[in-house]
Amino acid sequence: MKFFKVFPVGFIELKGGKVFIKVLERYRNCLKGLDGFSHLIVLYWLHLRDNPVDRGTIQVYPKGDISKPLVGVFATRSPSRPNPIGLSVVRKLEIGEGYLRIDRIDAFNGTPVIDVKPYIKRSDCIPDAEEPNWLRG
Amino acid sequence: MKFFKVFPVGFIELKGGKVFIKVLERYRNCLKGLDGFSHLIVLYWLHLRDNPVDRGTIQVYPKGDISKPLVGVFATRSPSRPNPIGLSVVRKLEIGEGYLRIDRIDAFNGTPVIDVKPYIKRSDCIPDAEEPNWLRG
Repeated sequence: MKFFKVFPVGFIELKGGKVFIKVLERYRNCLKGLDGFSHLIVLYWLHLRDNPVDRGTIQVYPKGDISKPLVGVFATRSPSRPNPIGLSVVRKLEIGEGYLRIDRIDAFNGTPVIDVKPYIKRSDCIPDAEEPNWLRG
Repeated sequence: MKFFKVFPVGFIELKGGKVFIKVLERYRNCLKGLDGFSHLIVLYWLHLRDNPVDRGTIQVYPKGDISKPLVGVFATRSPSRPNPIGLSVVRKLEIGEGYLRIDRIDAFNGTPVIDVKPYIKRSDCIPDAEEPNWLRG
């Protein structure tokens, strides 16, 4: 089946309670201009879920809670999904030579990072977005 | 170089001024449970930028405006970037059998969709995010 190739642009590094994105040498200059942004969108490859069982997951109980309705993975942020891409909006704490320090991320030491995007309020912030009751219930 | 495989889960279809995400047969049940969400995060493959020149782009003038500072692609939403993944927060208008209708997307008819995620305010909405002056200037 046709597929697209995604390359790591860096890796998550967890060190001394701090969270870093270490960017590969060749992509370091991609970080220029991030100074003025307080928040970023980080896309990462959920490498531990890159297997046929996790990638074949179609429906899940939200956060494994069987008291909630069984829903499709596109209605959840489950790491088991057809393309194991994680997405987190994070606060940027520091920019250094070839790295970013961020406040937190739901990933492991060594998780590959595949993209970093600036958080832009006008398009990314929807204060009146509606959500189903089961999300909080 | 090591890479990860991303598969299309559907395609953008533009028809009669309307915007659809047509989901592949095998992933249709992934849509269940999206009813209660007003907004989605759509990840798509910018297939027209999947070439060495666009994927080798490190810095750009924001929106091609040379009066602005030259910045790294990780500080912009430029479609020319190491991994040509587009991200849009969209309003969901309708869910049908194997498709979603959304309000708009900055993509073409036939653009491959690689993931759909629910928009969750608690993690995705940052009303006080800060941005550099050049973004609006």
